[in-house]
Amino acid sequence: MRPHRLAVKRQHERGGYDCKTVYEILDAELVCHIAYVIDGWPYCTPTAFWREGDHLYWHGSSASRMIRTQSAGIPVCLTVTHLDALVMARSGFHHSVNYRAAMCFGTAHPVTDPAQKLKLMDRFIDRIYPGRSQLIRQPSTQEFKATTMMGMEIETASGKVRSTHVADEEEDYEAVPAWSALYPITQVLGDKSECPRQLPGIAFPEGMADFVPGIPLDELMTRTYARTFGKETAEAAE
Amino acid sequence: MRPHRLAVKRQHERGGYDCKTVYEILDAELVCHIAYVIDGWPYCTPTAFWREGDHLYWHGSSASRMIRTQSAGIPVCLTVTHLDALVMARSGFHHSVNYRAAMCFGTAHPVTDPAQKLKLMDRFIDRIYPGRSQLIRQPSTQEFKATTMMGMEIETASGKVRSTHVADEEEDYEAVPAWSALYPITQVLGDKSECPRQLPGIAFPEGMADFVPGIPLDELMTRTYARTFGKETAEAAE
Repeated sequence: MRPHRLAVKRQHERGGYDCKTVYEILDAELVCHIAYVIDGWPYCTPTAFWREGDHLYWHGSSASRMIRTQSAGIPVCLTVTHLDALVMARSGFHHSVNYRAAMCFGTAHPVTDPAQKLKLMDRFIDRIYPGRSQLIRQPSTQEFKATTMMGMEIETASGKVRSTHVADEEEDYEAVPAWSALYPITQVLGDKSECPRQLPGIAFPEGMADFVPGIPLDELMTRTYARTFGKETAEAAE
Repeated sequence: MRPHRLAVKRQHERGGYDCKTVYEILDAELVCHIAYVIDGWPYCTPTAFWREGDHLYWHGSSASRMIRTQSAGIPVCLTVTHLDALVMARSGFHHSVNYRAAMCFGTAHPVTDPAQKLKLMDRFIDRIYPGRSQLIRQPSTQEFKATTMMGMEIETASGKVRSTHVADEEEDYEAVPAWSALYPITQVLGDKSECPRQLPGIAFPEGMADFVPGIPLDELMTRTYARTFGKETAEAAE
């Protein structure tokens, strides 16, 4: 018997359970890996991203190979993975990890409308640090040009979750005297290290109330996402 | 000025500094993302992996699409990413994350020699849990068949590291009154949750002395790697 695994793998549907699972996996993460093809060769690039409705967004230097390639409008696969536990078993076959993963397929395109691009640049910051776009300097003409904002509609998506404990062949529990266990893995936020050139008397930003040392990153990202996008987007996934 | 970034990006060379950096990034991780192409479409799949010398290995169900595709011998890009910190700045442009990433390019092929495959299956377990392959049940004929072990020689690799603090435009430090800081991110091991069907009187495995609650996963993986492969492989990277 293979470890119990909730495998959600079918066409992306608005309003479906699959869709909600995939959205929760996406909205709890900051970094994804994007696969794309140049001249038949695969590339896998890590980058920060976020979701709005059925769309995913990321950005990059306009000069980078990834962005120059994707600007032509090419198929991509954007994958997000949370590692949740190491799972030791009594056979090699049943060793596993607990995880939540989502694969999203679509066609990447640059956001060319300047007003939309500016709005997305703000939301990229706010998605991580709620309200921050209003506190910082706005992009210069040069910075605006040097940054390409990429977007894709999620055409197909699949989610995969393993969240069970040790699952061995029935006879192995008695027959194999190997110490077995599950070890949780958590990505956590540490304590802030303020910029050494902080201006005196600046208050800690209100929007960052969730940035508490020790908070799991997936929980933090889920909370900041809700603060910035509110119920509106969360409900779109229902 | 862009944030200071150590960008290592050139042909893979034995004995080079780049090679050592890339190997350290790889050996500190358990999960990678592999990009590959099916009918011109990119896929990005997360999976556990490890390195031996110039080779990378991973495995999968012989029935899975990823493994069936890669078994034909296809180009892949295997990427490993450690997220180390969130870096807030006084402009959107200079917001960043600290990270260590390695991209490895090569051609994936199945390991067909049964003796080598069996040895690799053991080492996959031992790389994470040193010595464990000797404690568990060996693969059944069916399990052996159902598992495909994949390998690739690293043909080209690049490493990228950002490890600096907040880095703003000089004039923004004074002009922009935005609270700025760096927040470390660490992936940590939690406390063990023993299998509820643990046999009584089984001792905690000696090889797992490094499995201490709170240890960062990258440190744990680096230590277990050294325990299993010793100085030999570490020196090959010098």
